[in-house]
Amino acid sequence: MPKKIRLGILGGGGDSLIGVLHRVASFINDNYQITGAVFNPDFDASMAFAKEIDVPLNRIYKDFDTLIEEELKLPEDERIQVCSVLTPNFLHYPMAKKLLDNGFHVICEKPMTTTLDEAKDLQKSHEKAGTVFALTHTYTGYPMVRQMREMIKSGALGKIHKVDAVYYQGWINTIIHDKEKRSSVWRLDPKKAGISSCMGDIGVHAFNLVEYTTGLKINELLCDFNYLYEDNQMDVDGTVLIRMGDHVKGVIRGSQVATGEENGLAISIYGEKGAFRWEQERPNFLYKLSDTEPTQIYKPGHAYNSELSLDGTKLPAGHPEGIFDSMANIYKGVAKAIRGQEYNDGEFPTMTDGVRGMNFIEATVDSHKSGNTWVALEN
Amino acid sequence: MPKKIRLGILGGGGDSLIGVLHRVASFINDNYQITGAVFNPDFDASMAFAKEIDVPLNRIYKDFDTLIEEELKLPEDERIQVCSVLTPNFLHYPMAKKLLDNGFHVICEKPMTTTLDEAKDLQKSHEKAGTVFALTHTYTGYPMVRQMREMIKSGALGKIHKVDAVYYQGWINTIIHDKEKRSSVWRLDPKKAGISSCMGDIGVHAFNLVEYTTGLKINELLCDFNYLYEDNQMDVDGTVLIRMGDHVKGVIRGSQVATGEENGLAISIYGEKGAFRWEQERPNFLYKLSDTEPTQIYKPGHAYNSELSLDGTKLPAGHPEGIFDSMANIYKGVAKAIRGQEYNDGEFPTMTDGVRGMNFIEATVDSHKSGNTWVALEN
Amino acid sequence: MPKKIRLGILGGGGDSLIGVLHRVASFINDNYQITGAVFNPDFDASMAFAKEIDVPLNRIYKDFDTLIEEELKLPEDERIQVCSVLTPNFLHYPMAKKLLDNGFHVICEKPMTTTLDEAKDLQKSHEKAGTVFALTHTYTGYPMVRQMREMIKSGALGKIHKVDAVYYQGWINTIIHDKEKRSSVWRLDPKKAGISSCMGDIGVHAFNLVEYTTGLKINELLCDFNYLYEDNQMDVDGTVLIRMGDHVKGVIRGSQVATGEENGLAISIYGEKGAFRWEQERPNFLYKLSDTEPTQIYKPGHAYNSELSLDGTKLPAGHPEGIFDSMANIYKGVAKAIRGQEYNDGEFPTMTDGVRGMNFIEATVDSHKSGNTWVALEN
Amino acid sequence: MPKKIRLGILGGGGDSLIGVLHRVASFINDNYQITGAVFNPDFDASMAFAKEIDVPLNRIYKDFDTLIEEELKLPEDERIQVCSVLTPNFLHYPMAKKLLDNGFHVICEKPMTTTLDEAKDLQKSHEKAGTVFALTHTYTGYPMVRQMREMIKSGALGKIHKVDAVYYQGWINTIIHDKEKRSSVWRLDPKKAGISSCMGDIGVHAFNLVEYTTGLKINELLCDFNYLYEDNQMDVDGTVLIRMGDHVKGVIRGSQVATGEENGLAISIYGEKGAFRWEQERPNFLYKLSDTEPTQIYKPGHAYNSELSLDGTKLPAGHPEGIFDSMANIYKGVAKAIRGQEYNDGEFPTMTDGVRGMNFIEATVDSHKSGNTWVALEN
Repeated sequence: MPKKIRLGILGGGGDSLIGVLHRVASFINDNYQITGAVFNPDFDASMAFAKEIDVPLNRIYKDFDTLIEEELKLPEDERIQVCSVLTPNFLHYPMAKKLLDNGFHVICEKPMTTTLDEAKDLQKSHEKAGTVFALTHTYTGYPMVRQMREMIKSGALGKIHKVDAVYYQGWINTIIHDKEKRSSVWRLDPKKAGISSCMGDIGVHAFNLVEYTTGLKINELLCDFNYLYEDNQMDVDGTVLIRMGDHVKGVIRGSQVATGEENGLAISIYGEKGAFRWEQERPNFLYKLSDTEPTQIYKPGHAYNSELSLDGTKLPAGHPEGIFDSMANIYKGVAKAIRGQEYNDGEFPTMTDGVRGMNFIEATVDSHKSGNTWVALEN
Repeated sequence: MPKKIRLGILGGGGDSLIGVLHRVASFINDNYQITGAVFNPDFDASMAFAKEIDVPLNRIYKDFDTLIEEELKLPEDERIQVCSVLTPNFLHYPMAKKLLDNGFHVICEKPMTTTLDEAKDLQKSHEKAGTVFALTHTYTGYPMVRQMREMIKSGALGKIHKVDAVYYQGWINTIIHDKEKRSSVWRLDPKKAGISSCMGDIGVHAFNLVEYTTGLKINELLCDFNYLYEDNQMDVDGTVLIRMGDHVKGVIRGSQVATGEENGLAISIYGEKGAFRWEQERPNFLYKLSDTEPTQIYKPGHAYNSELSLDGTKLPAGHPEGIFDSMANIYKGVAKAIRGQEYNDGEFPTMTDGVRGMNFIEATVDSHKSGNTWVALEN
Repeated sequence: MPKKIRLGILGGGGDSLIGVLHRVASFINDNYQITGAVFNPDFDASMAFAKEIDVPLNRIYKDFDTLIEEELKLPEDERIQVCSVLTPNFLHYPMAKKLLDNGFHVICEKPMTTTLDEAKDLQKSHEKAGTVFALTHTYTGYPMVRQMREMIKSGALGKIHKVDAVYYQGWINTIIHDKEKRSSVWRLDPKKAGISSCMGDIGVHAFNLVEYTTGLKINELLCDFNYLYEDNQMDVDGTVLIRMGDHVKGVIRGSQVATGEENGLAISIYGEKGAFRWEQERPNFLYKLSDTEPTQIYKPGHAYNSELSLDGTKLPAGHPEGIFDSMANIYKGVAKAIRGQEYNDGEFPTMTDGVRGMNFIEATVDSHKSGNTWVALEN
Repeated sequence: MPKKIRLGILGGGGDSLIGVLHRVASFINDNYQITGAVFNPDFDASMAFAKEIDVPLNRIYKDFDTLIEEELKLPEDERIQVCSVLTPNFLHYPMAKKLLDNGFHVICEKPMTTTLDEAKDLQKSHEKAGTVFALTHTYTGYPMVRQMREMIKSGALGKIHKVDAVYYQGWINTIIHDKEKRSSVWRLDPKKAGISSCMGDIGVHAFNLVEYTTGLKINELLCDFNYLYEDNQMDVDGTVLIRMGDHVKGVIRGSQVATGEENGLAISIYGEKGAFRWEQERPNFLYKLSDTEPTQIYKPGHAYNSELSLDGTKLPAGHPEGIFDSMANIYKGVAKAIRGQEYNDGEFPTMTDGVRGMNFIEATVDSHKSGNTWVALEN
């Protein structure tokens, strides 16, 4: 195995949940070494955290621009090779852009940007840079999601006719029903959180899962949001009718007020010869349905699975894989790409997914605001 | 217990599935005696079947009109009291109307009529007649569906914010993908099957379940159908956005091409304080979700259930109840109504449900044909 | 179809749960007509109930002996053909014996007798009589239990190596923990309830399911009971080690103090090539496991099922079948046997099952009382 | 947070599954730094692996004895503090003993030793050393297992009456049915694998889970093994009757020939007031049963959980935790102990668990070989 890849981290310090997830994921397959970072806008906090997790203190920088500047001064074989962008949403775009423009590889948290225009601009930088860009739609890393993709690609369902995806959560209830809170929290302030809450935060994961697993593109959509209160300015719930070409239709459902739902991402894909059903909270069980045969339950780690799926399983069948494994599989794919090794294009979501995601989010907002009309995506 | 109710049967002879279901349901609680019938348009077949199941042969009539005529000649205490209408769809309306106009009680299979106009006309007959009219939306008879209704009514969820109902089946696949079959089968011929296949046959059950359990009325809807093939004239799949008043929204999904799905009717109802989830194929498990408490699984036959729910359970908890129990519970409620006993209005669907169902079906067709616009229901 | 079979009922009057179950089961497939009965030791109660459910009053007898006497006076083509014995346990044996000795067919509730000696004596009567005798181990009537049996018979699992069956309930908790109740209730009084509570009441169902599905005989067993309290004289819980021949072993677990369990009968059967798992409370889902292939879920009503399984399904796949269907399937098989039609020997449990069941119960008691030693069954 | 703990690794190099599991677990909560190792008996392989995963090469030793010798020469604040023993089973005892005797903390894979005598001897070394000793019964690290323990401790079930634990796998099928393989594989050779296969490898996990969750001690047991073939010398299946004091009984079931089972560890605990059910393959769902209330589903990360449970959850509810999280939680507890911080004694299994486990294994073998008699455990 080649030497470890030098990884820089932007954000994700202290108790940051996303920070833990990315660090563990980078560690799991022994591909990365955290070499430098700006964990926190506060330099002291950044240094303290670096000490805690044993990152070399001389590579902790006071801010992002300094990191770029100083790292560029280092010889190439010491320099950070890839940066994980875990900062607040509005910083994803400028940071990712500058990283690409300076020749770094980028692993970027979702949402990639705050607008489609930014996304397209970032895409241009990426094309110029020629480096690796990965967007962490984490759920595509699950072995059983990958199995769906590969089996659909190899024709297991025949022509697809219908897709039904959902991402329901209930957590915003505690904010939305409190008049004070809902008018003050950054999440529900369009100036701070961007144009969409529910679709931007979670609906876009369901959208990505649809295109990732089916290999189809959504052509147009019609969306209806629910704001729940007159004085609330952001969608906290919405349903999106989708059309994916010749008589292929479906629906994407999202909600942050689906009381009692935790992280309810699920997808059903119906084709001429069979169907798949998968749920994020039971990620190791993939159901293959048929009109004429018994339903089959696929599980990770079995020889009957595809290479792409098996690549993401580290222990024998029956040892539950969780969210860490999922993100780790994405990091594993990125490592292959950075090293110029061969890899399956299902190993990590890319710039294209990012651009399409922003297109989806903006289209849902446009459709809702125009009175629930059909809006085309740019394909 | 009073004497058994004299029940007439129209249709449902021989191997008819719906015939078995209604006969067993009528028997289960010892309330009915099949007293007369036109099981079949062919009189000999009707007589043969009557012999088989021991219905008095002198009350088997050559056709529906004769049944009415002859039964009216009998003294009231011998005359059929209620007729179950199990004939092909287009006959429901004329038969039900004539029965009501002649003072009979009616148990009518779904769809109640083929148009909303017929439904309204039937409603007038019913108002005039003052007899009992029940529409067999069978699934409302399950003890756990009734439990949802009663708990929602008593405020267990607080204000409802979102409803998500689905009815997916895959059985039409075998027809729709065969050019020859799809152009010849009555099911997909609008002249024979009415204006809608998927929404008319199954979507309307999901619609009914939404209004039955929540106690809310759908005000307007927007629908997109999928016909799957250019030469197919009937919806075999569709998604319906719904609005139920002040910021209460939801979605009803229906499909007959959801490969591998058998009888996939399910509902999720999200309110301020909690949520319910229920699936028809696991009817004895009702999930109550909360943002702060462990999910609860309600099951039939326990003392913690409501009176309405317990009324429909005949054996101790843990003895699975199925579709026969569900229909039997509806027949039990109708018996109470016919006998003038007190009953809960959740015990059987009525004329109002029938009219609303037709309104729903027509509105989905209107919405789809008008380019997926919002169509108001008559509330 | 031939004329309906004339059915007599012993016991099961009023609100009797077992009465409802048998009546509905006898009705479902249009094979039986209730022709006579002793519903209750109190003649007036018996008559009142007969009126309620429309059984001819002149065939309601004051007691069992009168029923036999009077029915024998009737011409054979009017006489009751088969009697369902639903009386308290200690009456099963004398009634069944007299019925057989007088040429009647018998459907007998479980336990067949109170001792193995009685069982063997009854077996002799049955051999002499040559009539049909069915024991209502109801759970063998489920379509998916039948499917297991047929697939195992046709070699789907290869050689069987291990069997694990369980029947857990929690309902006796309310009695057993109350010193007053546990010393007074008939259920826990060996003089009234026989030698075993847990094994006699439910363990024997699990035993029967093991032999029914695998086609193997249990050769010997070792059992440990739990009485829970010093002053309790009956087993309320027990585990039974079983040996079924050449290196085929297993375990049968029973409990009436498994708090929160309702009717938790389940079985797992492991063979050289595969395994089955089935649970009574989700009766329509049969899991077939493999070391190398995805788990398969079999469901009722599909063409892939065996004839024996499909014979027990009345409605299309996806319409839940419950306990009524299960008992109805047993009655259907008995009807075929009474009419001399061909039938699969898996359609109903017989005298042999009854004798073996009593042998099992006595052997568990012997094993426990002898200090948990191996006790052979009579094969 | 204090500086990272210096961790040594014995075994677990290359593609070792157990190696990955421990490394990731040690990393997840930022408590450990791998400082030295003997990954492999082959020194070159050890060095190559150290390079791959970036462990300082000067701390890679040619063998275990050298590691001890050299590390002891280092100043205490540079020296390895704790060693993870991941070597083949027969090496656990001598290595752990020498480590303890030289003042190191130890994290030891299971089985702790190969005999009870060794276990007791190791216990003496541990008592003398006074360092931390942890045995990786991994499954006790799951948040929902911890939740069971804490709720039982605080009386949620009342007095416990019955315990039912199982660990079924099917993986040995591929070996056992092949005469050649079963006579040559080390797993089934008592000289190499110790006295028990099924109980020693997996049954002991179920045993540990029983005592971990209930807080009760098993007093005596009776066991029956299945060897499956005459020429096989090791148990590949077995059932253990257990007694845990005053009328508290239960059963532990183990199998390596349970075809199609992957890692089927599960436990049910029945008490006077309620019951728990948990399955390792769905580790994030804990069922609490009651005779009178709806079943409750507990899930990780909710405020309703105990401190011990919440301590093991890193992401919000609904992000599936898997086997890595479970082992990581054990490492987290060990870190607290090493640092002298306060911790719950449920955070990791100890020497006592190891001694009891060996006692259990030997007792099952004794019981089986003595003709299935009761054997007392040393309490």
